[in-house]
Amino acid sequence: MKYYDDIRIGDVLMTGRHVFTADEIKSFARRFDPQLFHLDEEEAVRSHFGALCASGWHTASVWMRLNVDYRRAESDAARARGEAIAQSGPALGVRDLKWFKPVYVGDAIDYKSEVSDLRVSNSRPGFGLMMVLTTGVNQNGVPVISFISTTFVERRPEKP
Amino acid sequence: MKYYDDIRIGDVLMTGRHVFTADEIKSFARRFDPQLFHLDEEEAVRSHFGALCASGWHTASVWMRLNVDYRRAESDAARARGEAIAQSGPALGVRDLKWFKPVYVGDAIDYKSEVSDLRVSNSRPGFGLMMVLTTGVNQNGVPVISFISTTFVERRPEKP
Repeated sequence: MKYYDDIRIGDVLMTGRHVFTADEIKSFARRFDPQLFHLDEEEAVRSHFGALCASGWHTASVWMRLNVDYRRAESDAARARGEAIAQSGPALGVRDLKWFKPVYVGDAIDYKSEVSDLRVSNSRPGFGLMMVLTTGVNQNGVPVISFISTTFVERRPEKP
Repeated sequence: MKYYDDIRIGDVLMTGRHVFTADEIKSFARRFDPQLFHLDEEEAVRSHFGALCASGWHTASVWMRLNVDYRRAESDAARARGEAIAQSGPALGVRDLKWFKPVYVGDAIDYKSEVSDLRVSNSRPGFGLMMVLTTGVNQNGVPVISFISTTFVERRPEKP
């Protein structure tokens, strides 16, 4: 993770792509969202979605996984270059989480994030707040999810 | 599910309680949020959270499960009384999802929802939009999560 002071509004992260399988859609749904259109192909055909599709919470949680992996790879690369790594987190929350379209079996979702705002934290000395707009787009270029997350990011320590 | 026309602003649902175990916190984290403070007790002690705690996406997803179960029980009871059941969904999104405090192992979270706004849908004839403020509170009375969700709910069919 970069230090707060090295991040700019407009910075873009291509967090990664995930292809949703029927098995993982059903597995998430059994635990967290057991509605028939997330569990059963035939029932889903009769629903307003028309086919088996992922829970919206699943689509959001998959982004979290890709984001953690991306940040880890970024930090590993920086460490390998001998650079210091900024602490980040915790996340404070998410604004405007929108599910535009269903995510169907086989859909490949590309998650892209863009820094939308930055401000120094009043409550936590040595940290800033980073607002990031994330969008997930399917293989047809259609947005399926977007949200704005707010996370603490460490400021670059002052030189003594 | 009640018909849109039978729902009032201020209606309250006690969606249910969930006690978070270490096993399920780690199981969610392995798939969706593999940060050390969600995976490993000892590493968590050294983190800013101070102990193993649930991913925020896990805390939200558990609400979804309780909500689906609650709605299903409500619909089953209405059906048993010979009443018609309104269609609901899909959910359009969530505003102002906030994670106030960590959810630690053994925490018992009570999820409560209150209808905060209602309006007739312009885009989907026969449906209204219901906005619901949900709050999760731990066994010490401390709020840990809140969000406002927006969902389509069927209107009562007009008599012919």
